[in-house]
Amino acid sequence: MTDLGAEAAYNRQLEGRSPPRGFLLSTASIRFASPERPATAPRAMNVSLLATERPTESFAGVLTKNRFRGAPVELAAERLAGAKLQAILVNNKVANVGAPGGLDAAKAVAAAVANAMVIDQARVLSVSTGIIGWRLPVLEISAAVPDLVTCLGEARPADIARAIMTTDSYPKVRSVEVAGGSIVGIVKGAGMIEPNMGTMLAFFLTDLAVERDVLSRCLRRSVETSFNAISVDGDQSTSDMALVLSSGAAEPVAETVFQAALTGLAEGLAEDIVRNGEGACHVLRVAVSGAATVEAARAAGKAIVNSPLVKTAVFGNDPNVGRIVAALGDWAGNNGIDLDIERVAVVIGGVTVFEQGRFRLGGEVEDRLADYLRRTSMDPSVRGYPQHDRCLDLAIDLAMGDASFRVLGADLSYEYVRENADYRT
Amino acid sequence: MTDLGAEAAYNRQLEGRSPPRGFLLSTASIRFASPERPATAPRAMNVSLLATERPTESFAGVLTKNRFRGAPVELAAERLAGAKLQAILVNNKVANVGAPGGLDAAKAVAAAVANAMVIDQARVLSVSTGIIGWRLPVLEISAAVPDLVTCLGEARPADIARAIMTTDSYPKVRSVEVAGGSIVGIVKGAGMIEPNMGTMLAFFLTDLAVERDVLSRCLRRSVETSFNAISVDGDQSTSDMALVLSSGAAEPVAETVFQAALTGLAEGLAEDIVRNGEGACHVLRVAVSGAATVEAARAAGKAIVNSPLVKTAVFGNDPNVGRIVAALGDWAGNNGIDLDIERVAVVIGGVTVFEQGRFRLGGEVEDRLADYLRRTSMDPSVRGYPQHDRCLDLAIDLAMGDASFRVLGADLSYEYVRENADYRT
Repeated sequence: MTDLGAEAAYNRQLEGRSPPRGFLLSTASIRFASPERPATAPRAMNVSLLATERPTESFAGVLTKNRFRGAPVELAAERLAGAKLQAILVNNKVANVGAPGGLDAAKAVAAAVANAMVIDQARVLSVSTGIIGWRLPVLEISAAVPDLVTCLGEARPADIARAIMTTDSYPKVRSVEVAGGSIVGIVKGAGMIEPNMGTMLAFFLTDLAVERDVLSRCLRRSVETSFNAISVDGDQSTSDMALVLSSGAAEPVAETVFQAALTGLAEGLAEDIVRNGEGACHVLRVAVSGAATVEAARAAGKAIVNSPLVKTAVFGNDPNVGRIVAALGDWAGNNGIDLDIERVAVVIGGVTVFEQGRFRLGGEVEDRLADYLRRTSMDPSVRGYPQHDRCLDLAIDLAMGDASFRVLGADLSYEYVRENADYRT
Repeated sequence: MTDLGAEAAYNRQLEGRSPPRGFLLSTASIRFASPERPATAPRAMNVSLLATERPTESFAGVLTKNRFRGAPVELAAERLAGAKLQAILVNNKVANVGAPGGLDAAKAVAAAVANAMVIDQARVLSVSTGIIGWRLPVLEISAAVPDLVTCLGEARPADIARAIMTTDSYPKVRSVEVAGGSIVGIVKGAGMIEPNMGTMLAFFLTDLAVERDVLSRCLRRSVETSFNAISVDGDQSTSDMALVLSSGAAEPVAETVFQAALTGLAEGLAEDIVRNGEGACHVLRVAVSGAATVEAARAAGKAIVNSPLVKTAVFGNDPNVGRIVAALGDWAGNNGIDLDIERVAVVIGGVTVFEQGRFRLGGEVEDRLADYLRRTSMDPSVRGYPQHDRCLDLAIDLAMGDASFRVLGADLSYEYVRENADYRT
């Protein structure tokens, strides 16, 4: 059951976050039509504008590796290579993926922003999240743009985070103060779990003066251990995008300091996405150590968090260690990894459940584990705020080398099936 | 609702199948204890014996690639390299995987068979399917062996198929008459979907005189397009095993004839496994063509049938083409496959839904597709027999080359989550 007091407290804390200096935000709700939209589907869409006061040369982006990229990703790939950027227009409800004339539509709404702001249209991105296959309502969005530009500065990060939600059940914003400036991160997406949605969007805004190449390097590194370390169902969307913009309104900052702050923020937001994953009842945190390479550690971790059998057992609060070891063995066997199962150790919530090639189970251990699973579980019917910040911790030692990696995943619940089976109906 | 008449008709048809000449079968139900077995778990287990009248030098096996192999797989790996084989002892309920002393236990029950049959114990396999981690009840099984040997010849393939079931909802046997002899195939397993179970077992018995190396070659080829072409949830078990034994009681047969017969049988049985997959409401048959290599075609097909989003949409009878294309794009993007999305075609049940980089959707097409999905669906509450033999056909042309491959998969239903979340409780 949703606790209205907890929800209000969560929202108050979010509202407290301001944009970094040099940024202006606005958002609006509009009505729209799309030829593909069924009569019963919602008619309202949110459009938001994130702008820097002055054009900036400091920006970077990381785009989905999905070969089937949405028009906004194509446009971003082109314009992120340009000299300057000043505005990002974001809409929800329609992903602008695979619809006829998608790239032209993205350019048209970006041009509307450029006209209203009297800037070069190459400095504007159009970012969309929502249903794949539907056409972007160019007229309706363009008509809303002048008001969005007029209202720039009236919205706060929490308003943007709320406006870009799709199946998210609550808005996600984090911020950090560092070196006399700040970084604000805004994300949407219930994980990489909605390929029918233009899924994960992450916007990082900072006033810290960071050179473009440093920004790019830092973003790439941060993404590796945050968004690239989560998996709700192993599907990567057609529209995943993480963008960082610096207004340069604050002082310059050392790369190591900025990197640490950005990574911390990104990792926190990535966890927020998993926790708010569709139907998620547990956040699984799998720390793989003793791997030959970081890539192997990541792959082993993903093999576990993506195993439907591990996921369903966790959902059922069933400490089913056999499935974890079997998923590991499946990954190793099918990837030519010379894993010595006799040396592998599996620890759940601090309890060693497998070592020396044998399970260490028994009634008492099972009871302790089942209790641990229940304590780390969430009720997917609670919406509007995160219920707690507990993870189900799994530590795996592969005993093959020194590399380690931490992966986050969600369990597989009835609610996940319901949301994804009934999504469009 | 289960149709008792249909169930009886299915079972009658199965009972009609005899073992090939030169084979003797028996089965029995016993009670057992296992230190790890909770008080509430079932106490009955089936033990079965498949024997050739005379020792045979014609046999072959294909074993799981999972690095975490069960004791029966270890024993089989050893004994399949030997000169002769005469008996296979099979039990359900306990997989003999990861339990202390597992290999010794497997050898002990095989030795009990060898003693009772007065043959070399290297000629006996012990095959187990059931819970991972539990100890094999060596005493109880060994005590039942003399009766099993005495009763050899009293069981038919359908009895064995029923005795080795775990979460299967009906027994699976197919046979083919060819060149004056026959091949009988018996399988169990609701797919590769139960890594907590020693999952898929396939036994092929034939009286056709086929040399061991030919048998081995034919089995490997058959497995490629049958059991290695199915995926219920992407998990490969610790105990998967396909065995073929020839008694040589009939005439020799040309390799091409035997290969065709065995492949047909294996592909049929593989489809049976998917159809009876846990919670399966649809059998997805994905024919990938135009791939650069067979391996790429298989991988593309598996990317689709293993996508939780495709699976849940299919369960919901939602013709959600976006998810299919997104899963393809995800596979291509993350495996460096230079897929040209403009040339990809996706056909569902004969209807082209995606080509030239665009969806071809609309109310009428969606209605037709939704109707097609409903017609190919099954009710998971019907148990005891297959409801129909319809598949949901998906054809994908990658337009990259000449290779093709066909993959079978199941959808992802509430029932799947229920069975796997509540499995041990």
